[in-house]
Amino acid sequence: MQRDIPEVVIKRLPIYYRSLQQMAQMGKDVVSSQELAKSAGVTATQVRRDLSYFGEFGKQGKGYSVELLLSELRRILNLDRDWDVVLVGAGSLGRAVTRYPRLEQHGFRIRHVYDHNPNRINTRLNGLVVEDVSLMPEQISREGIRIAIIAVPPSSAQEVADELVRSGIKAILNYAPATIQVPDDVRVYDIDPVAAMQSLTYYLEPYESRRKRKLSSASDRIDITS
Amino acid sequence: MQRDIPEVVIKRLPIYYRSLQQMAQMGKDVVSSQELAKSAGVTATQVRRDLSYFGEFGKQGKGYSVELLLSELRRILNLDRDWDVVLVGAGSLGRAVTRYPRLEQHGFRIRHVYDHNPNRINTRLNGLVVEDVSLMPEQISREGIRIAIIAVPPSSAQEVADELVRSGIKAILNYAPATIQVPDDVRVYDIDPVAAMQSLTYYLEPYESRRKRKLSSASDRIDITS
Repeated sequence: MQRDIPEVVIKRLPIYYRSLQQMAQMGKDVVSSQELAKSAGVTATQVRRDLSYFGEFGKQGKGYSVELLLSELRRILNLDRDWDVVLVGAGSLGRAVTRYPRLEQHGFRIRHVYDHNPNRINTRLNGLVVEDVSLMPEQISREGIRIAIIAVPPSSAQEVADELVRSGIKAILNYAPATIQVPDDVRVYDIDPVAAMQSLTYYLEPYESRRKRKLSSASDRIDITS
Repeated sequence: MQRDIPEVVIKRLPIYYRSLQQMAQMGKDVVSSQELAKSAGVTATQVRRDLSYFGEFGKQGKGYSVELLLSELRRILNLDRDWDVVLVGAGSLGRAVTRYPRLEQHGFRIRHVYDHNPNRINTRLNGLVVEDVSLMPEQISREGIRIAIIAVPPSSAQEVADELVRSGIKAILNYAPATIQVPDDVRVYDIDPVAAMQSLTYYLEPYESRRKRKLSSASDRIDITS
């Protein structure tokens, strides 16, 4: 039993879970590590190594029981319960978040939406009333909510994160295009579609091939200006 | 010069780019690897190592020129041009994508939105007319578009991806909660907020601490049922 399970492993578990749910819906009872690997876009060795952090879930050569592996992953990922969530930011991004039905379907219930803009406060967003962000700290701590979604402009992201952490939030899904600093006991998952796109365009003409074409043209050494 | 630059490095470059853009807006001329690291949520060693794949961008002890590093990252990530994009899926997720202003602001122009649902075809989505997905292959190849966003239900994601790849798409931002299989020369970046949430809830009560508490209660060995 290893003590520290790498974050990349934890990030792959929900993908296995998603694949297994699809298999269960299709009536599949047993899955090999090869099949699970293919369906999750990794190698079979990876699947076996990732799962081995949590015990032995299959018999050599016999594969995994889809139902049992699902229930184990549910337990490991703390999905055998619903989770209350607060959303900060009722602009276009926040609105899109409230309209995304899969969060609720998977047990993530948005209990409060906050904004500081008076024009947004008290308006309705997909069944939720936008509340004044000044109410946030007290409501989070009274209701014991531990998960927040940040959907504010990058310039206010850190300030919002600080307030959330002070109120007791331990997990943040961050849609603001800014890196936020949090204490060690708080986890952040960043989603930035622009950064995703910008890593994809790298591969449309990878640096290596471009570099080879212009190898003789110039030195790549760049000095700073000041 | 190493040949294969790890994907995690490529994924961090847009985060450095984003941090540097904020610094430039704040009028900062020179940045140390420590400052850049803090602002991007990594270590200074990581910053130096990541950038060293692409040449030498700073002088020992003097830091990096913000403007020069920005222009180098723009060149490396192929951001010194605009990119045309197609969006497949005009449901609630696709609609949210068309309403996300940052993509356009960063040079990613959605040229076509496709759907197969007759009720959606020819309706307007944020200035774009939803087109019949049957027109997609010919339009993509005629216009030489290489980037697609998939925002369809998971059950059709693979079929759509296959069609996109046949039409010449080389980079896919995948919002469908399904793993899609593509040839080696095509890159996929998955965004699944539910999977993100499910990796966060793991940490709200990590398996290790729960395991310790119940160490004596039962064996973790689980046999498959059939």
